[in-house]
Amino acid sequence: MKRIAFVLVPAAILGALVLAFTTSVSRYATAQGAAPTFVKKIPAGYRDWKVVSVAHEAGDLNDIRAVLGNNIAIKAYREGKLPFPEGAIVGRIAWSYVSSEENNKVFGRDQSFVAGPPTETYLQFMVKDSKKYAATGGWGYSSFDKDGKPTDEAAMKACFPCHQAIKDRDFVFTKYAP
Amino acid sequence: MKRIAFVLVPAAILGALVLAFTTSVSRYATAQGAAPTFVKKIPAGYRDWKVVSVAHEAGDLNDIRAVLGNNIAIKAYREGKLPFPEGAIVGRIAWSYVSSEENNKVFGRDQSFVAGPPTETYLQFMVKDSKKYAATGGWGYSSFDKDGKPTDEAAMKACFPCHQAIKDRDFVFTKYAP
Repeated sequence: MKRIAFVLVPAAILGALVLAFTTSVSRYATAQGAAPTFVKKIPAGYRDWKVVSVAHEAGDLNDIRAVLGNNIAIKAYREGKLPFPEGAIVGRIAWSYVSSEENNKVFGRDQSFVAGPPTETYLQFMVKDSKKYAATGGWGYSSFDKDGKPTDEAAMKACFPCHQAIKDRDFVFTKYAP
Repeated sequence: MKRIAFVLVPAAILGALVLAFTTSVSRYATAQGAAPTFVKKIPAGYRDWKVVSVAHEAGDLNDIRAVLGNNIAIKAYREGKLPFPEGAIVGRIAWSYVSSEENNKVFGRDQSFVAGPPTETYLQFMVKDSKKYAATGGWGYSSFDKDGKPTDEAAMKACFPCHQAIKDRDFVFTKYAP
């Protein structure tokens, strides 16, 4: 019994050391832009989040969207605080932009455009973690289709360069609609 | 003391009778379309409600809108249950539909339409109370400008006739966007 205890204790310490070392290396790599800038997991409960604003993107996107925020993001938005605090997540759901025949019939004219089926980049999120995503302004970007499949990484490389245009608002395009 | 008690008890009974009678008359009047079908109070906390869907109304309305629901309404929507249960409230916030110069500059083309200032009928709600609003399909309608001022009653008379077109879905136009 004494020998087993002797082996187990150092193993636990070794495990902790390896973990600490791995974390440290991972953070260093991220800061150098060599490691994860894309998030591969859909945040739990996003469909229950509060509304930041809504928008219609015409052209190739041709969607109608709701921009939502988790509680950390919404609080910062409402208080007008920038940069967004750690843990803030801004998400957007994009549905295809479709004319509603049903509504138009009632109105007597073509005026109503509603949310249709999910678009190819149905869900997108920006996750604030200044250390982990230091290489991309402190935000990790993610994008998913309706089945939860992440958008391919080549396309994801366009996120940050585009969001850089709005660096003054901590890289977040959408303003809070009161 | 005995005399006071004698007077008080019948007064309480009388009060209860008057209340019962008034309620009965009020319900009868409502059922005849002669009493309150319009709601004059903005539901507390509506801005924190969950998203039902989003839409763009072109034409005279020219708005972009978020349709939200209180917890009772959202639960019914998600379970696909009709009619909506008592206490359900469906709300919509309508912002003016504006082109975003800022976004368009980044995209390099005119494609981005966002939420601008509140419209004249900024907030609208349908409140489910089958008895109180029996004359209008069990829903009480309300509408407010950005300062919380109710829309005038003449205009409000158009709510129910229009929503009647969608009686099959319990008078609610907006479908839940998953």
